[in-house]
Amino acid sequence: VSEGALVVIPVRGIGEVRQGDSVAESIAAAVALEAGDVVVVTQKIVSKAEGRLVPFDGSMEQRRAIVESESVRVLRRRGDLIVAETRHGFICANAGVDVSNVEEGWAVLLPADPDRSARRVRDGIRKACGVEVGVVISDTFGRPWRRGVTDVAIGVAGVAAVLDLRGEPDALGRTLVTTEICVADEIAAAADLVMGKASGIPAAVVRGVDAAWLRDASVRAEIVRSPNDDLFR
Amino acid sequence: VSEGALVVIPVRGIGEVRQGDSVAESIAAAVALEAGDVVVVTQKIVSKAEGRLVPFDGSMEQRRAIVESESVRVLRRRGDLIVAETRHGFICANAGVDVSNVEEGWAVLLPADPDRSARRVRDGIRKACGVEVGVVISDTFGRPWRRGVTDVAIGVAGVAAVLDLRGEPDALGRTLVTTEICVADEIAAAADLVMGKASGIPAAVVRGVDAAWLRDASVRAEIVRSPNDDLFR
Repeated sequence: VSEGALVVIPVRGIGEVRQGDSVAESIAAAVALEAGDVVVVTQKIVSKAEGRLVPFDGSMEQRRAIVESESVRVLRRRGDLIVAETRHGFICANAGVDVSNVEEGWAVLLPADPDRSARRVRDGIRKACGVEVGVVISDTFGRPWRRGVTDVAIGVAGVAAVLDLRGEPDALGRTLVTTEICVADEIAAAADLVMGKASGIPAAVVRGVDAAWLRDASVRAEIVRSPNDDLFR
Repeated sequence: VSEGALVVIPVRGIGEVRQGDSVAESIAAAVALEAGDVVVVTQKIVSKAEGRLVPFDGSMEQRRAIVESESVRVLRRRGDLIVAETRHGFICANAGVDVSNVEEGWAVLLPADPDRSARRVRDGIRKACGVEVGVVISDTFGRPWRRGVTDVAIGVAGVAAVLDLRGEPDALGRTLVTTEICVADEIAAAADLVMGKASGIPAAVVRGVDAAWLRDASVRAEIVRSPNDDLFR
């Protein structure tokens, strides 16, 4: 592999995750991790392991009630779709409540604190195999103006959420004015390319990221925009 | 490299691109391409090669005038920032007009038709080295609600923009209701992880994508939301 290249590796063989399972141990058993790897884990298995499930009878009424109980504010409604702000400050369809890839009778909520969930997976991997990795918890969000969903980061540990290049020189030696790159979202997106929605692969390893990105970080502190910094809220 | 893994390779040694240069030939000379690779090229070198430059004296007044001439509609203004809709239907800061990484005295506009630009690069690579690749033209956009910018696709050729999984079964065998994944944006994001804003690497190769994604496609037709399909316009 060329210098500076990244490798994005699907993690196979994790199987169904149930409440109380250790996501960290499942991943450490399924793939040979290396120091400096970034492990991307889909929200769904993290939420399942954490028991973030509520009974769901399949009705539109109950779905709406669950979504509203997970929302602090509804931004838009159209038909069955509710775009809502969650307690974490995420703005997404159905406040992150998901009924696909779940056993009948249940709906999956977002983790209560996805940055903490990421730290728990990071610490668990360190304990299971002695390797220091970064962790990104990913989820699938739509966005205004552009069709199609992409995976984004809802929690991180040990890897930057936003990389601040303000003040660094550009390729022509002049100072970049404002470039804050959301590398955590780009890592989540890269990982989704090997996971797919239908394939049941709930984790991936991104190998080869810049070592300078591996630091304490938080999606909540770095990515979630405060309302008064937000032109679209 | 494991089965199903992707490799993201930075393309070094392209150097400064000037009007009339062939982006395809520069890339084909800089990296050994393989059939099925997706080549991601940043908008800036495509625009420079196509001569999409306008004189710029560095003043805020002229910058505003250039941005407004590239806009069909201004959505928000705050200080120096203008969020505008371009003729292509993209909604982004400054209508895509860029003054960083450009020689003094010039501003760079988006390509007039980025899907066409992508086809031209794809055709040029086929001619230069006989290899059939997909091409994504990427640019760096901000987004509502989340801090930090990410790279997205503004043009594609030979690779899907949006992958339609509606009607496919999920991992538990039930039918996914609506999952349209914007793989072109995810590919652009993955590529940005090896390019960086300050490093002057204007292209990357994403190797190992699902062969089913390699088809005729268009950002304009697949990604740009029509206003009446858009809850946020």
